[in-house]
Amino acid sequence: MMTNKVNKQWGGRFSESTDAFVQAFTGSVDFDQRMYAEDIAGSLAHAEMLFTQGILTEEDFNLIKEGLAAVKAEIEAGHFPWSIELEDVHMNIESSLTEKIGIAGKRLHTGRSRNDQVATDIRLWLRNQLDRIDAELKRLQQGILSVAEKEHDTIMPGFTHLQVAQPITFGHHLMAWFEMIKRDRERFQDCRKRLNISPLGAAALAGTTYPIDRHLTASLLGFSAPSENSLDSVSDRDFAIEFTADAAILAMHLSRFSEELVLWATPAFDFINLPDRFCTGSSIMPQKKNPDVPELVRGKTGRVYGHLFSLLTLMKSQPLAYNKDNQEDKEPLFDTVDTILGSVRAFADMIPAISSKKENMYARTKLGFATATDLADYLVRKGMPFRNAHEVVGNAVRLGVETRRDLSEMELAELQQFSDLIAEDVFDYLTLEGSVAARNHHGGTAPKQVLAAIERAKAMI
Amino acid sequence: MMTNKVNKQWGGRFSESTDAFVQAFTGSVDFDQRMYAEDIAGSLAHAEMLFTQGILTEEDFNLIKEGLAAVKAEIEAGHFPWSIELEDVHMNIESSLTEKIGIAGKRLHTGRSRNDQVATDIRLWLRNQLDRIDAELKRLQQGILSVAEKEHDTIMPGFTHLQVAQPITFGHHLMAWFEMIKRDRERFQDCRKRLNISPLGAAALAGTTYPIDRHLTASLLGFSAPSENSLDSVSDRDFAIEFTADAAILAMHLSRFSEELVLWATPAFDFINLPDRFCTGSSIMPQKKNPDVPELVRGKTGRVYGHLFSLLTLMKSQPLAYNKDNQEDKEPLFDTVDTILGSVRAFADMIPAISSKKENMYARTKLGFATATDLADYLVRKGMPFRNAHEVVGNAVRLGVETRRDLSEMELAELQQFSDLIAEDVFDYLTLEGSVAARNHHGGTAPKQVLAAIERAKAMI
Amino acid sequence: MMTNKVNKQWGGRFSESTDAFVQAFTGSVDFDQRMYAEDIAGSLAHAEMLFTQGILTEEDFNLIKEGLAAVKAEIEAGHFPWSIELEDVHMNIESSLTEKIGIAGKRLHTGRSRNDQVATDIRLWLRNQLDRIDAELKRLQQGILSVAEKEHDTIMPGFTHLQVAQPITFGHHLMAWFEMIKRDRERFQDCRKRLNISPLGAAALAGTTYPIDRHLTASLLGFSAPSENSLDSVSDRDFAIEFTADAAILAMHLSRFSEELVLWATPAFDFINLPDRFCTGSSIMPQKKNPDVPELVRGKTGRVYGHLFSLLTLMKSQPLAYNKDNQEDKEPLFDTVDTILGSVRAFADMIPAISSKKENMYARTKLGFATATDLADYLVRKGMPFRNAHEVVGNAVRLGVETRRDLSEMELAELQQFSDLIAEDVFDYLTLEGSVAARNHHGGTAPKQVLAAIERAKAMI
Amino acid sequence: MMTNKVNKQWGGRFSESTDAFVQAFTGSVDFDQRMYAEDIAGSLAHAEMLFTQGILTEEDFNLIKEGLAAVKAEIEAGHFPWSIELEDVHMNIESSLTEKIGIAGKRLHTGRSRNDQVATDIRLWLRNQLDRIDAELKRLQQGILSVAEKEHDTIMPGFTHLQVAQPITFGHHLMAWFEMIKRDRERFQDCRKRLNISPLGAAALAGTTYPIDRHLTASLLGFSAPSENSLDSVSDRDFAIEFTADAAILAMHLSRFSEELVLWATPAFDFINLPDRFCTGSSIMPQKKNPDVPELVRGKTGRVYGHLFSLLTLMKSQPLAYNKDNQEDKEPLFDTVDTILGSVRAFADMIPAISSKKENMYARTKLGFATATDLADYLVRKGMPFRNAHEVVGNAVRLGVETRRDLSEMELAELQQFSDLIAEDVFDYLTLEGSVAARNHHGGTAPKQVLAAIERAKAMI
Repeated sequence: MMTNKVNKQWGGRFSESTDAFVQAFTGSVDFDQRMYAEDIAGSLAHAEMLFTQGILTEEDFNLIKEGLAAVKAEIEAGHFPWSIELEDVHMNIESSLTEKIGIAGKRLHTGRSRNDQVATDIRLWLRNQLDRIDAELKRLQQGILSVAEKEHDTIMPGFTHLQVAQPITFGHHLMAWFEMIKRDRERFQDCRKRLNISPLGAAALAGTTYPIDRHLTASLLGFSAPSENSLDSVSDRDFAIEFTADAAILAMHLSRFSEELVLWATPAFDFINLPDRFCTGSSIMPQKKNPDVPELVRGKTGRVYGHLFSLLTLMKSQPLAYNKDNQEDKEPLFDTVDTILGSVRAFADMIPAISSKKENMYARTKLGFATATDLADYLVRKGMPFRNAHEVVGNAVRLGVETRRDLSEMELAELQQFSDLIAEDVFDYLTLEGSVAARNHHGGTAPKQVLAAIERAKAMI
Repeated sequence: MMTNKVNKQWGGRFSESTDAFVQAFTGSVDFDQRMYAEDIAGSLAHAEMLFTQGILTEEDFNLIKEGLAAVKAEIEAGHFPWSIELEDVHMNIESSLTEKIGIAGKRLHTGRSRNDQVATDIRLWLRNQLDRIDAELKRLQQGILSVAEKEHDTIMPGFTHLQVAQPITFGHHLMAWFEMIKRDRERFQDCRKRLNISPLGAAALAGTTYPIDRHLTASLLGFSAPSENSLDSVSDRDFAIEFTADAAILAMHLSRFSEELVLWATPAFDFINLPDRFCTGSSIMPQKKNPDVPELVRGKTGRVYGHLFSLLTLMKSQPLAYNKDNQEDKEPLFDTVDTILGSVRAFADMIPAISSKKENMYARTKLGFATATDLADYLVRKGMPFRNAHEVVGNAVRLGVETRRDLSEMELAELQQFSDLIAEDVFDYLTLEGSVAARNHHGGTAPKQVLAAIERAKAMI
Repeated sequence: MMTNKVNKQWGGRFSESTDAFVQAFTGSVDFDQRMYAEDIAGSLAHAEMLFTQGILTEEDFNLIKEGLAAVKAEIEAGHFPWSIELEDVHMNIESSLTEKIGIAGKRLHTGRSRNDQVATDIRLWLRNQLDRIDAELKRLQQGILSVAEKEHDTIMPGFTHLQVAQPITFGHHLMAWFEMIKRDRERFQDCRKRLNISPLGAAALAGTTYPIDRHLTASLLGFSAPSENSLDSVSDRDFAIEFTADAAILAMHLSRFSEELVLWATPAFDFINLPDRFCTGSSIMPQKKNPDVPELVRGKTGRVYGHLFSLLTLMKSQPLAYNKDNQEDKEPLFDTVDTILGSVRAFADMIPAISSKKENMYARTKLGFATATDLADYLVRKGMPFRNAHEVVGNAVRLGVETRRDLSEMELAELQQFSDLIAEDVFDYLTLEGSVAARNHHGGTAPKQVLAAIERAKAMI
Repeated sequence: MMTNKVNKQWGGRFSESTDAFVQAFTGSVDFDQRMYAEDIAGSLAHAEMLFTQGILTEEDFNLIKEGLAAVKAEIEAGHFPWSIELEDVHMNIESSLTEKIGIAGKRLHTGRSRNDQVATDIRLWLRNQLDRIDAELKRLQQGILSVAEKEHDTIMPGFTHLQVAQPITFGHHLMAWFEMIKRDRERFQDCRKRLNISPLGAAALAGTTYPIDRHLTASLLGFSAPSENSLDSVSDRDFAIEFTADAAILAMHLSRFSEELVLWATPAFDFINLPDRFCTGSSIMPQKKNPDVPELVRGKTGRVYGHLFSLLTLMKSQPLAYNKDNQEDKEPLFDTVDTILGSVRAFADMIPAISSKKENMYARTKLGFATATDLADYLVRKGMPFRNAHEVVGNAVRLGVETRRDLSEMELAELQQFSDLIAEDVFDYLTLEGSVAARNHHGGTAPKQVLAAIERAKAMI
């Protein structure tokens, strides 16, 4: 005998009700209720299509519209009685709808399944988030541009291997960040293009026997087209993985920016002013002012990487079509979105508030023979092959290391002992300003080129 | 001017208060309040040591004890006013304590820092969880043993490459699961041993100038010893990674069990009875009974793997000692614990409720020439080298494939055309029962050996 | 004293030569020699630009062209003396060039650095591989289409949760695979677009003081444009990560195909013929025929996922610009390309050789009440709300489970006890053929729709 | 008809030979030949047991011993004709043995399978590598101890958040590294304990029908016991994952050491002398001396993390027992071992050659109010509650920031304006030496404690 029948939506063939712990363990309503607005939007489009195709009466359609509006209002007012016994956002909403409008509510699920319903909801939800992320990334780019413009000719050490390599400008350095974000935005756009396909109408996995119009629901929901294959539609989670991979690359970029900000804030560097409001202190050391925001953003990289691998693992070796495993796609995706939005927002707020400590940057550039390459280039222009010039300058640097002087601090005679091609004019090439200005081609660090790059960037975004 | 000073614990040197979004973004109290009991236990031990060492007066110590008891009661009653402005569990509790008992509360933080405090809390917390996990794993092992005993001589196909390889018993198969869990428990024990070291007294990173007794606090908190190095103590997160790696291996095992349960429940196999209470249905397909629990557990593998990579990424390249990044260690750890506890509990509940469908297992064993190796072994015992016997049997199998018959269904004369060593007694070796019984050595699938293994297992746990 | 000076290219400032183990440990020529053709192509374009800009004489340019052609011939003939003392492919080739043509060889490195050189090489190399991968993926799609066309109306069980859900056609199932590959190809195309930007001219990190023409080298090498920022150019490895992420999603798809092939080949399913040439046997069990190719491809998923995580970890928190860490980008990338090319080739060879075992597919579809949804839809069309119909059919299924019969095997009277809306015509809807044919809309499993999808697919590729 | 039969070991039932590409794609001999010595050792033990049990004659056993010795000599002389057609190391060796000694060679595979054979080989191989790794780690620990002893009282800044926190000694910092390696060694030991179990005798998956003695083979091969369950024995890859997880934690530690070495070598820090032989130069910038070894080791972290994820992915959801996927376990494991051995060796060579630049470390410690906590502690000792003292010192630091002076550089009167508890003796507490010496408890940074810790460490290793 059927007793204790809990689940009204699918319990017909079951002879015992779900174990209470299993119900809690397998339920998703705690987290998927976040997609309530998309779920309702999807149901409205589905209902309108059913009505247009003559599968629902106008009366039923109107009842459904009113009922769903009431459900939505209830949710947004915080009164909705979410129930774990009803498993997920879909059944919670459908069940409440049926309570409100009676039998018409039971007709809404005609010609669809939770499999295509959830696939639709999650795509709508992620599409909205992609638009929010894009807006924040653009704001971050604008912040970078504003600082880069002010600092387009501020000299700082360009590092390779964290050794002083050549002088660059701070503006040029920041524009490298701009480029990274530019690619990130492009990747998210490409991801959006691919996810914006409607799975609705795939039903459980095979399509449905009702005369549905999938182009209509796709169009009502702003999708570019209905999907091509029903099995694929309910089992595809590519978009979630692609999004999270794009987010992981962005998180990687943010970790690099963070690493540099942390370095620039350490007393031995002391390159930048970072306003107090983005820092915190220590419970024990009264002097501490810690660059918490970049540190935390750097730490959150792991979180996003982890979610990417969570989703890749999830989908590995799953046979078609839908499996319960797929329920695990949501939390990593939600948390990735939250993490990315928070991190980018924090950076978009913080970056424009940063300014350089010019004298420190300048002084540190002088540590490390930053113009050695300029001396080599000078010798090449006087006719020496580059490889020989490299050797000559290497020897001069060794003298500098031993006597603790920069190349520009040596006597002409001293320099000439390494090559008689060196003349008085060499000192023009050993200044930081001269070095920077000379890298004057597309993409080079010359202040003129940095300003040109900023102009192109402004035009682009 | 100092205005809007929010943070009373560390704001002295700051000239503007933390940005509200930054405060929410960098705060941890939302998730670290989960360690309130461990935080209070650690404070009590610290206070007792301060008192013993003459750093705190008895009066202050008594006030602190009473105050912390009151705080704990408030938290457990659900009345505690957690505040994001107070950042984390530590400052929330200290601040409330000071409100309650006045100046004595301000003396509690003498000789420690949040850095060693949080390191202590998280180790205490994880130690408790390890004990809970161990208990659940033991329960799962007991469940496996109970089924394995009942099914010690139930014949089923042993697969390699998901092709029928040789007959085995279901009990033997289940005992393979038992072994995996045995190693998992050992790994967790080894992890526990390494984490059970007290960081308390490391203070911010260098130790403290007070005459503290670190052996005393270690002993009060049940740690096996104080840590050896203060920098290491506040920056080490090995225990969290090691735990999560152990959890990932366990999750991998659970994913394998799950895969098999899902296979055994598919109609073409139909090997087991899985009670309805561990299954759910479909919103559209009335006939569906889905093995949700194993599917979901299989899906959760990704979650645990992801957390492991999150933590590994987090710690990559962090210079000593504490960095804000480390705040990100908690959520992956917490969720790993929850996921593992939930999954193991679900399995420990479900496994003992499983029974075999013996006739189906038996019938499927007959598909696939499961006793071909037995025929080869038969020939070897008659003097043929193994490699030649393998070839002979391979040819017999080809005939079987072409004529759709098992080896045991061929006529003697037919078999003899492959080798004249084959005699009437060959049929004794081609039965499933004979095949299984013959693998009668330590670790083999003979029912006798399975029972012996179960006895050893019972003695061990 | 300068003794044992090994490295002629950069040793000027060094007072002791590199430790022999360190040289082997840090050298890359063992693996980066694979990019020799791209390295030479990049050098030729660079030399042509230097000549065009008046930085190299025509004579030197001609010598360089001849010298590089000789080097290339030597490499391809297998005679090139690769030397670990010369660290990498770049210095090996430059050093050999200088041996061959003298001082002109030392002029080639004017205005560039290994940093932009390697960034150029790797992009050229990966661009070529992307084109090879695309060709193999297209071949795989064609293979899928050829089988899907033949099997467009072959009935098989459609699974969800590996339980029989609804009947589908094998062609429809295969077209789901086609869709996945379609998205994979799109992702690789998007990746190619982003990587096809020339870093040449970024030099070490800041650009160069020579009047170079970066648009010219970009154009000579088939890049769409020079990069915008020199720091970004030498430190960006996005393209490698994006490629590997795309490869990981593809590998995930291949793992799903593999899982299904392995399932379909297990005796209890026995859905397909898999030719012997794609299988191997067992050293001990003479009867075994194992689906090695799909199993191995499934296993290789881990390899690709691992490489993705390797690259993400590599770049995490790296400050600008180039760091030695980046040398580690190549092996994961190379192995990802090899793994993907091998796996896709194996599938492109194997898939067209697969055929269905129709009678087995059909028989297995009948296990599991595959037409239960059709019965529910039947009731809805007679006026019953869907949720009620679901309940009615669920009860009928319970009777079927208890009496071991499919719905189509029940008497009309039996069915009518669940609902008096059921009439004689119900049996038309309970056939597998009727069920499949009725899902007749865009993306549905009806054979007609499958053929239409195949036509669209053919037009597309 | 049987034509082109390539595989003599298992081809009996096959009607076409393996596709040539498939053979290359699925073969493993290219990489698994690395385990030839372990494979031969395993075969010798197996043969001895077969002889002892009366399954092999003495004559055959002697032939096998001689034959395997000849094979081994041939391999080690570089003359062995490895063949991809023979798939793997096992069949290559067995086939060569049979060529050498005839029919006795065909008897060797009696009672075993490649499944238990490879499981045995890989465990023996990894056990050897674990012993090599342990020896290198010990050597690294000794190197750390030697530098720590010399630098036990060298003052340097202790950082948190890369901000100067409190003065510590360089020896203390290095001893934090020692602790990390100590835990790494323990983890490898625990892994070794678990892997040192003999799978031999599990045969294909179910054991064998021969009267084998698994305790004897276990003992002959130095295993602590035979495994308990044959299915588990051939499908368990826990040891590989556990090893790789341990390696990942070690790699993480090395990445942290590397990050610090790179920081300490950057001109703004300039804390250490790093001998030229561990550095390399630049092809374009003549002044560069790059800390290649730590950078590369830091980069290799990704490699090890990647392999861990590769293995975890590999094993996810695999049904029992052996599947072809498992062949993919070897390359990640081999490369992890090589990477770890190379990285640890490089560090063990390099660390003892490092020395501090004391004056730079000292000067940088003075940047950042490193003794602020000492001032707070001073006030507490005069009776002020810690939280109040923290506030007082915070205000003093603000004055210091504004006037660019350390606390020790202020006048007494200035300090007294923050608290009248401050007296002349305060300056004793504001020196770096005093601060360090005062942290004089177990695990603290006082030079005395560092020496004590070094003594304990020496006794331990």
